[in-house]
Amino acid sequence: MHQAIYEGDRRLRVRDVPETPPAAGEVQIDVAFTGICGTDLHILHGDMDGRVAVPAVIGHEMSGTVARLGAGVDGWAFGDPVTVLPVLNCGACATCRAGHGHVCPRLTFIGIDSAGSMQQRWNVPARALVRLPADLDLAHAALAEPTAVAVHDVRRSGLTDGEHAVVVGGGPVGLLIAVVARRTGAQVLILEPSRQRLAVADRLGFATADPTARDAIEMIQEWTGGEGAAVAFEVSGAAAGVSTAVDALAPRGRLVMVAIHSAPREVNLHRFFWRELTMLGARLYSPYDMATAVELVAAGEIPAADLISRVEPLHRVDEAFAALESGAGVMKVLLDCAGRP
Amino acid sequence: MHQAIYEGDRRLRVRDVPETPPAAGEVQIDVAFTGICGTDLHILHGDMDGRVAVPAVIGHEMSGTVARLGAGVDGWAFGDPVTVLPVLNCGACATCRAGHGHVCPRLTFIGIDSAGSMQQRWNVPARALVRLPADLDLAHAALAEPTAVAVHDVRRSGLTDGEHAVVVGGGPVGLLIAVVARRTGAQVLILEPSRQRLAVADRLGFATADPTARDAIEMIQEWTGGEGAAVAFEVSGAAAGVSTAVDALAPRGRLVMVAIHSAPREVNLHRFFWRELTMLGARLYSPYDMATAVELVAAGEIPAADLISRVEPLHRVDEAFAALESGAGVMKVLLDCAGRP
Ligand SMILES: [Zn+2]
Ligand SMILES: [Zn+2]
Ligand SMILES: [Zn+2]
Ligand SMILES: [Zn+2]
Repeated sequence: MHQAIYEGDRRLRVRDVPETPPAAGEVQIDVAFTGICGTDLHILHGDMDGRVAVPAVIGHEMSGTVARLGAGVDGWAFGDPVTVLPVLNCGACATCRAGHGHVCPRLTFIGIDSAGSMQQRWNVPARALVRLPADLDLAHAALAEPTAVAVHDVRRSGLTDGEHAVVVGGGPVGLLIAVVARRTGAQVLILEPSRQRLAVADRLGFATADPTARDAIEMIQEWTGGEGAAVAFEVSGAAAGVSTAVDALAPRGRLVMVAIHSAPREVNLHRFFWRELTMLGARLYSPYDMATAVELVAAGEIPAADLISRVEPLHRVDEAFAALESGAGVMKVLLDCAGRP
Repeated sequence: MHQAIYEGDRRLRVRDVPETPPAAGEVQIDVAFTGICGTDLHILHGDMDGRVAVPAVIGHEMSGTVARLGAGVDGWAFGDPVTVLPVLNCGACATCRAGHGHVCPRLTFIGIDSAGSMQQRWNVPARALVRLPADLDLAHAALAEPTAVAVHDVRRSGLTDGEHAVVVGGGPVGLLIAVVARRTGAQVLILEPSRQRLAVADRLGFATADPTARDAIEMIQEWTGGEGAAVAFEVSGAAAGVSTAVDALAPRGRLVMVAIHSAPREVNLHRFFWRELTMLGARLYSPYDMATAVELVAAGEIPAADLISRVEPLHRVDEAFAALESGAGVMKVLLDCAGRP
């Protein structure tokens, strides 16, 4: 079977390897599609070489069907459509016992810390499987994982009907957050400098603005009738995005920190004090978030056609990564792992 | 009657002025005691000259008894012991309507934006009065306002029984937070570099440490069995205090931002993301917090003897402020406003 591997040094390669039968407690999946995530790009750029053991099969946004069961596994049958919840937590620490296993300090992530889904056949622990509805388009189903991120972020914000929410950054994660946020009944504004991404957000019916073209805060003040926004999602990863998000908020506003800021950022803590703002870090998702995400994708609530910019066969993994990096016009790129590689 | 005024240029003066009768809707209070707050020190240092109109009577941590009622006021009688909730919010904006009047953008604060309690007789809007139990020592009652701050901060943290809380900064506000935090059933550790303040915290039975003498984070890890603290209160106002508070926290930990950081601070947002930390700005208090604070002071739960370092007559206002600034051995200084000035 074929698999794409990260070899280090910014190189990906497709190779043909013998199939490994699923171990006890594992299920083998016929992978249908694997989406390429920002994390996969970070891995390719070498940013995670300290964590990823090369050669590494990466990928974790996927869909597929059950191929074979390892010893001791039941409850699954050949052909069952599935996605994977790639979070393996320890189950024993205080964080796990408190129900926050997705931030367990001993967590391992399938597709980073162990082999991922950019391959035709993938063995995963049975407990990681998530059942998909029988009639769900498997290309759309590959959006379940990033949708789970968005569900988690919106849930963490406590956003409710009638509130105003600003999404700072209109890439795929920002758009998914905006879509999920709008379902709460909130008003949603997307701030994004790229013209092409703004066009997608406009087409999906969101209020949008280019923060580089106009004073974003003044505009948010107008948009909220002078009150400020109840919620801001920082998805840009930029220092300027952090200050925009903080300045956008009304008294008691909530800032959800979605993006990864690898350097410390200057934060206006006086404003946190003065307005009693709340900042909430948000990472990954719970099984509940994933279940909600699958429901949303299955119900057609996620605009898959606008989000999936391109589907490439597995052997064109280089072109797929290059397309994602090429520019803002590309949202999600999926690898078709099922066909002839 | 006598009053202490801030004249600008780091000067305080006591002057004799004619008494003003209470206007309609006001109550005149015979002030018993006024505590000196960090905010009063900031005013004396000129840090708030843009907001405070000189000559200004400052002060807002007080106790007293009702002297006279203005037209249209009822429900109060001569001699009733009272304190004041010095927060006047607009009542009409979205923040007020949401029940968060203490962070109303149009809020005015008695003792900063209008005359305060460093005087013998003080007229305040009747709606600002808070009734005190008849048998409460009025010197202790002057601690109700700073206790309300602590009640609010602890309530904002959501601290519960069995959790670990770190208080970064062991001055009067930090100690009050520690006292209120301990009542939830939490374990409380106070980090404070001053030897004299540590001695007070030790005497009150808290776990303590000098963060300059030992690696604070390592020590917190030990103290929490390797898990990290559930809650940190940043009361120091220092950049190092912010990083200590962030680094102290367990996954899903909550950081309450109590101190005023006038400059932006570098914050490790990656840790907020990775551990799903929460930062909560906390300012002032609600009427509910003040009622709780009065109950705590009346029940003897607040260690007044350890907190009130000194009581000075009003005419020694200079000495009182100087004592507070002199060093860490001094916690709270009260002005006795009732006697002969
Ligand atoms: Zn992903
Ligand atoms: Zn765990
Ligand atoms: Zn005060
Ligand atoms: Zn208001």
